[in-house]
Amino acid sequence: MNQTLETRLYEAVSRVRQHWRGTRFLDGLEPGVEGTRALLDVARIYRANRLEIGRMRPLVGRAVAGLFFDPSLRTHTSMEVATGRCGAHFVYLQGGEGTWKMEFDEGVVMNGATAEHVKEAAPVLSSYADILAVRAFPKADNRDETVIRAFARYAGAPLINLESALAHPCQGLADQLTLADLGGNNSFQGKKVCLTWAPHPKPLPQAVPLSVVRAAILGGADLHVACPEGFDLDAEEMERVHGFAADTGAKLTLTRDQASATQGALAVYAKGWAATDRERHGELAAKNAHWTVGDEAMKTATAFLHCLPVRRNVIVNDSVLDGPKSRVIPQAANREPVQAALLLSWLL
Amino acid sequence: MNQTLETRLYEAVSRVRQHWRGTRFLDGLEPGVEGTRALLDVARIYRANRLEIGRMRPLVGRAVAGLFFDPSLRTHTSMEVATGRCGAHFVYLQGGEGTWKMEFDEGVVMNGATAEHVKEAAPVLSSYADILAVRAFPKADNRDETVIRAFARYAGAPLINLESALAHPCQGLADQLTLADLGGNNSFQGKKVCLTWAPHPKPLPQAVPLSVVRAAILGGADLHVACPEGFDLDAEEMERVHGFAADTGAKLTLTRDQASATQGALAVYAKGWAATDRERHGELAAKNAHWTVGDEAMKTATAFLHCLPVRRNVIVNDSVLDGPKSRVIPQAANREPVQAALLLSWLL
Amino acid sequence: MNQTLETRLYEAVSRVRQHWRGTRFLDGLEPGVEGTRALLDVARIYRANRLEIGRMRPLVGRAVAGLFFDPSLRTHTSMEVATGRCGAHFVYLQGGEGTWKMEFDEGVVMNGATAEHVKEAAPVLSSYADILAVRAFPKADNRDETVIRAFARYAGAPLINLESALAHPCQGLADQLTLADLGGNNSFQGKKVCLTWAPHPKPLPQAVPLSVVRAAILGGADLHVACPEGFDLDAEEMERVHGFAADTGAKLTLTRDQASATQGALAVYAKGWAATDRERHGELAAKNAHWTVGDEAMKTATAFLHCLPVRRNVIVNDSVLDGPKSRVIPQAANREPVQAALLLSWLL
Repeated sequence: MNQTLETRLYEAVSRVRQHWRGTRFLDGLEPGVEGTRALLDVARIYRANRLEIGRMRPLVGRAVAGLFFDPSLRTHTSMEVATGRCGAHFVYLQGGEGTWKMEFDEGVVMNGATAEHVKEAAPVLSSYADILAVRAFPKADNRDETVIRAFARYAGAPLINLESALAHPCQGLADQLTLADLGGNNSFQGKKVCLTWAPHPKPLPQAVPLSVVRAAILGGADLHVACPEGFDLDAEEMERVHGFAADTGAKLTLTRDQASATQGALAVYAKGWAATDRERHGELAAKNAHWTVGDEAMKTATAFLHCLPVRRNVIVNDSVLDGPKSRVIPQAANREPVQAALLLSWLL
Repeated sequence: MNQTLETRLYEAVSRVRQHWRGTRFLDGLEPGVEGTRALLDVARIYRANRLEIGRMRPLVGRAVAGLFFDPSLRTHTSMEVATGRCGAHFVYLQGGEGTWKMEFDEGVVMNGATAEHVKEAAPVLSSYADILAVRAFPKADNRDETVIRAFARYAGAPLINLESALAHPCQGLADQLTLADLGGNNSFQGKKVCLTWAPHPKPLPQAVPLSVVRAAILGGADLHVACPEGFDLDAEEMERVHGFAADTGAKLTLTRDQASATQGALAVYAKGWAATDRERHGELAAKNAHWTVGDEAMKTATAFLHCLPVRRNVIVNDSVLDGPKSRVIPQAANREPVQAALLLSWLL
Repeated sequence: MNQTLETRLYEAVSRVRQHWRGTRFLDGLEPGVEGTRALLDVARIYRANRLEIGRMRPLVGRAVAGLFFDPSLRTHTSMEVATGRCGAHFVYLQGGEGTWKMEFDEGVVMNGATAEHVKEAAPVLSSYADILAVRAFPKADNRDETVIRAFARYAGAPLINLESALAHPCQGLADQLTLADLGGNNSFQGKKVCLTWAPHPKPLPQAVPLSVVRAAILGGADLHVACPEGFDLDAEEMERVHGFAADTGAKLTLTRDQASATQGALAVYAKGWAATDRERHGELAAKNAHWTVGDEAMKTATAFLHCLPVRRNVIVNDSVLDGPKSRVIPQAANREPVQAALLLSWLL
């Protein structure tokens, strides 16, 4: 029985490797369409056999280092539990707290506050751990990927982006698993998916909405993105992901009309993000307070999704979140199996 | 040999389950008299075979998440080591630090400082971990159990209270193990136990003293609680625990006289807690500075106990703490086996 | 095959025990010349078979508690990964953050900020963990070893100093491994090693430079220590380590001339430390800014070493650190195997 599970797991991992040999998971597009499908198959095997795989400890003797420059509940816990269940050791490191203040610029005379350069930190951590995972989402500049790019450059070990300014690829992978659960037959190809902007007091980066777009395109969805004027998603990133649409049959509709976007959708995925003109974010978010997702918007939709944490009665009303259409808990639960799939695909 | 230990452990755990099927350990009364006795038997097996059980890894493949809103040395370490020795993975999470600021009120429009509601946090953590353990002791209001009650309501996973305002049930369970070690024949039934108030600069909650009372009553002790005027323990909680006295033959004496309470006691358990009128705590504590436990109070008593951390020469004098009657180190050591017993009883 | 590795590991560990039965690793001199050699042999076996030993989990069922009063990246990660790979559980504790503020003085009336005395903390942690590891480097007073000495006095469990004011013995052990790698035939006996002071904005303790001296003397090097006037290393500690020179054939030359010290050296080890007159550190460090290690100093030397974190273009120029002579990454990587060797020598 265990023999069979081990064999199935190993074969599923082998299929990932047929399509993807990379060691960077930064925006989630790296494994491509086939590699992503194979990863999701590994995730499903893990999810259905979590305790049994935990007893097999397939990654015993391995170590994963997680470096968090920003707060985390789901990402930290799901990454650590996935690592531990696979039998590997997880080291939690808090950037800045309990470690040395890190330098990312080149050629600096380091006589100020920073005590350690990423040029040392990344290879040193790579020497101890078999995989690095890094979370860093700079608040000020929406397009600043300094931290994760520096680790990608200097880390010898495989690297997972646990959320940067422009990408939250593990969330995107989990979202594909969740959408495929909703779609039936492990697929949401051709299904209508709605990503809608929603009000949030803070000018948040586009990491999650862009990852939802990537996830929907990789999975071949009929994606409708709704947002008010002044909140359009990053054009360059949208262009880049659009290249995959031809392979997957995905369709992309951009609209200012939340009602039409949610109409009959398999899933309504809500998320707040910053106004393009960040100075005016507060004003523009207040002006569009009616974009909060309520019962009306969910009337003809099947499921409500959100990456969490979610601000209740700002992003979405209690009635939706506590109602039967909310799938945010199983969606969050899917983080563990997709991250386990990544670890297994690299280390098994 | 291992076979035998495994069998003994499994049988002891089965006896717990005969008496207790609950998944909440919040004030320590939940397992009842028989369930508690059975838990203590599991703890004794673990304590006597810690390394061998560690090699068996009975809970391999499982995960425990510990969420700490307040500082901890013993509780964190003993919980994590108990989890690790049983072969499960422990995730340490610091509430507020490194995670999202959490909301506990219902129906709130979350446009302020809190980013995540316990209605999501509790079920999400439950999806990753097989057991949750939460420490939160609000300083302001002595009767406020908001945090642990919210987790109890929304967590799907079994839940351990690692200290709230009104209860520190793992400490209470360890205290029963310690008292039974002192009493002989694994019991302190009918033995005189003294819980005495002692001075402390801060108006501390009653979590520990109430848990000592519960522990003493569950074990059938002749309990003498001594405190100065203005420091009486919570009447409602005292009433509630008193219901168990009939089953265990416990006796409860409340007194203002520390000398009579300590006289011939098997154990003198010292602890500081707040004056009922918190505004006057400093003044009343200073007035009762002579309640510090010294050699005189210990003269006819067998052992000195305290949950730790203890303020030396405020709660108790160095001469007692460094003397032969102090049992505070083995008492603290007993935290690991009783917590392992809880984990094993739920997950083996 | 595993049988063979297990046997080799056990025999290597036995050789450590023939020479060293101590349970304190505080300044790194404790195992003596022969014990240190044996420890390095265990480290080499671990390093060459890290994954296979990780799969054997030789220390399953054990626990190590790491208590950090100061920041750490390498030390924390390498200690935790070494522990995890050996199959034991590692508990990370942050002194002051998330734990109780600790008291180290004797006879204190603890009615102030400190809530827990080391007289309780050390034995309690010893009851949960099989090994304690403590990092505490007080900034103010260079000779103050209060914390690690208090743990050494009160901890029942074996104790590793993870850096104090006067010693960083795990770094010293790793440095011996690195120097022996450079020297060939697992030895650097008789080879010229240069330890040079280098500028640093902060008045750092001498923990690392003193540990480099101890390491070089234990390994029998021809050690040249170069520093400007006003930066001489602690005379008492230098005297103490010098006693080992007779056993190992080590030679020690103190000089003000960086050029002669680096000339033809197997390794140039740079490190900043405080001026003896700490008040004048800033002024004296600025005056000696030309001590920054550059290409000229490395011209006839084989390798550049530094314990990390290193301030680029202050301690050493980018051209050296990014050049072919830098061995700082393998040097840092050597932390894991030497620390694993300590754990195995005490617990296998």
